[in-house]
Amino acid sequence: MREYEVNNRGNLVFGGCDTVALAKEYGTPLYVIDEEYLRAKCREIRETFLEKYPNTKAVYASKALQTLEVCRVIKEEGLGFDTVSGGEVFTALKAGVEPETMVFHGNNKTLDEIEFAVKNNVGRFVVDNEYELENIGIIAKKLGKTVKVQIRITPGIDSHTHEYISTAKIDSKFGVFCEGETRDSIIGKAIDNPSIELMGFHCHVGSQLMDNQDHMMALPIVLNMVKEVNERFGFAPSELNLGGGFGIRYVDSEQETRVADFTDPMMEEINGFFAENKLPVPTIYIEPGRWIAGNAGITLYTVGSIKEIKGIKTYLAVDGGMPDNPRKILYGAEYEAVTANRAAVPANKQFSIVGKCCESGDVLIDKCNLAENTVSGDILAVFATGAYNYSMASNYNRVPRPALVMVKSGKARLSVRRETYEDMILREI
Amino acid sequence: MREYEVNNRGNLVFGGCDTVALAKEYGTPLYVIDEEYLRAKCREIRETFLEKYPNTKAVYASKALQTLEVCRVIKEEGLGFDTVSGGEVFTALKAGVEPETMVFHGNNKTLDEIEFAVKNNVGRFVVDNEYELENIGIIAKKLGKTVKVQIRITPGIDSHTHEYISTAKIDSKFGVFCEGETRDSIIGKAIDNPSIELMGFHCHVGSQLMDNQDHMMALPIVLNMVKEVNERFGFAPSELNLGGGFGIRYVDSEQETRVADFTDPMMEEINGFFAENKLPVPTIYIEPGRWIAGNAGITLYTVGSIKEIKGIKTYLAVDGGMPDNPRKILYGAEYEAVTANRAAVPANKQFSIVGKCCESGDVLIDKCNLAENTVSGDILAVFATGAYNYSMASNYNRVPRPALVMVKSGKARLSVRRETYEDMILREI
Repeated sequence: MREYEVNNRGNLVFGGCDTVALAKEYGTPLYVIDEEYLRAKCREIRETFLEKYPNTKAVYASKALQTLEVCRVIKEEGLGFDTVSGGEVFTALKAGVEPETMVFHGNNKTLDEIEFAVKNNVGRFVVDNEYELENIGIIAKKLGKTVKVQIRITPGIDSHTHEYISTAKIDSKFGVFCEGETRDSIIGKAIDNPSIELMGFHCHVGSQLMDNQDHMMALPIVLNMVKEVNERFGFAPSELNLGGGFGIRYVDSEQETRVADFTDPMMEEINGFFAENKLPVPTIYIEPGRWIAGNAGITLYTVGSIKEIKGIKTYLAVDGGMPDNPRKILYGAEYEAVTANRAAVPANKQFSIVGKCCESGDVLIDKCNLAENTVSGDILAVFATGAYNYSMASNYNRVPRPALVMVKSGKARLSVRRETYEDMILREI
Repeated sequence: MREYEVNNRGNLVFGGCDTVALAKEYGTPLYVIDEEYLRAKCREIRETFLEKYPNTKAVYASKALQTLEVCRVIKEEGLGFDTVSGGEVFTALKAGVEPETMVFHGNNKTLDEIEFAVKNNVGRFVVDNEYELENIGIIAKKLGKTVKVQIRITPGIDSHTHEYISTAKIDSKFGVFCEGETRDSIIGKAIDNPSIELMGFHCHVGSQLMDNQDHMMALPIVLNMVKEVNERFGFAPSELNLGGGFGIRYVDSEQETRVADFTDPMMEEINGFFAENKLPVPTIYIEPGRWIAGNAGITLYTVGSIKEIKGIKTYLAVDGGMPDNPRKILYGAEYEAVTANRAAVPANKQFSIVGKCCESGDVLIDKCNLAENTVSGDILAVFATGAYNYSMASNYNRVPRPALVMVKSGKARLSVRRETYEDMILREI
């Protein structure tokens, strides 16, 4: 969440807009994305990373939040794009993103996706495994192209984050372990394949990390691997991709992280390592997603039934829930909220905020203090929903997916229209 | 899962169709729904419940799996429809379902949804709380209609099923507790409201229950309430809705349940109670969803990368995952699978089956024995995916949602076409 502004009507202001007016104009549930905030986060990356260190690149992890407009904003701010599927590549292309600035991820890219991305000159493949490498080689050869790849390696550390979003253990569906035969086999084949240009390595340690411990634990392992690979193959990477995982402040008790908290100590170690080993410093990539989009978004809901179970709790139900935000039921994620039309009233009554789905687990916030005079018909704003909400939304319970509005300096524009009942049966024969 | 058939090519047969041929014709991932199985389950309900006991109704819990065609099949088999949103009501209406046979659920129906359902003469509202009751009254009056309602009550027992799908505890977002002021208040208001006709009560104890313990624990509590309410208000219910929750066999080690395992002992107790208390036996409703649809479906995937991590496990990645089946990551759900094109080969090698999403938690089956000669390009069939897969699917990672094919006695027809990349940006302005 971010510190929030309240106008003289007592309403929550977001991106300069009165959120109660937004709810009235566009309906609820409503995703609201603050363009200025997206730009400010990209600016921080430019100023404290890209401009501070030569030969660095930042690619936005599109899976956090991808719309055509978000792509355009991020592109204007000078970032590239981390994509994880043919669908994300397609959307970025539609938005006018230059394919050269795209990095294509995935532990199991399909043959169709590989062909689509190669045909469209996607800049980098982050190759997960030998099977993929082989397929890229075959398809690249067929299309008369050379594909630039980074190989995803796992440093074998166990991230302290939630199990489901911990990606760098040795037991991982992603990448190849940073030591031994499997590693040497894929590197050897990448070097030998004339349709493939091996640029370097990729490593991602986890998600929503609030400090740099895991990054700093993984980095020496990766650098040591670079040294070993150089000794064995005479190969010096021209690129090193450090992934993302930079956490955001979801709730009041957490702190904002700065990108430099992660990148400064890593760059110091990297520069030291390459100087010491007399190797050229490769281009360093980072892949922030949630860190850019998370706090750029809020979700507005209309309050429906409020139900007090004496001695237990007061349930407050909103007109959305797990279909538009499955992160609580998936990960036990925590959020903060405010009654948007009573944002100046002290939040001194505890509610349990639940969704409208026919499912007990459809809870948004277990315990949330709101204005005690909150009533049915009020507007509830849930903070920090910019990432992994729009992108994870479903039609569970045949609930249409919300509209998405972009706000900027007091002006709002509809960016994704609300789904209709008709839309939901569009694919039926 | 069900016992499966293998043809002389060694391929898995489902609904009389060669699944490998289905995968080839319609692509993967592919939902396959066996129409005959849906009909057989409805037939069991007719023969062992509806025809065995007078004044009984079964309404299909649409949230498990709703398409126009599934609605038509279920309707032909003589069941009504449990719906949980305006979207489900809309879809059932489009399929030609008579609104009188629909029961409308939900802890937080929006005003628009209530109006939509009242206008369209939906048969029953299962009223969750006083706020809803009041709104139904206002809207019914405005439209000059009388709305028939069942009030949802919670018997206060704690189901032994997974926490997220346990719905009958006293601490529940659903319904009103079966004792005390809150109960008497809503019943009194329902009786007094001239736009509302109180038909009786609804109770749902949980989901995926493999025996009748919870149902039989809740029933005397509900019947005792009926007695108390009769004494206090002189009201005898003409309907009693016992909900659903009848479990299915997901994995080999589980047993099939029969609907009579639940309904026979309940009907005995119900008939005894009403005879003893000299009250007319109300119409009894049940609401099976998963029990009908779960084992009617399988999902076909293409095997992509297979990755052995020595001494740890072998990952086998398919071209789908949590976007088309989020039940494993949501509930830790268990599934069985078979290599569809090697279905006659002994399954003696253990794999960890994962999806293609950029998320470590995107696992379908932790440990699954498959034919040891399973290779990339093979077709994998995951069993028992008929319920809560199609209905819970998302576009996470911008993955298009699968096609859905109906099979019947060896014939297949496309029922829901595969989503395209273009579909996914359709709502963008």
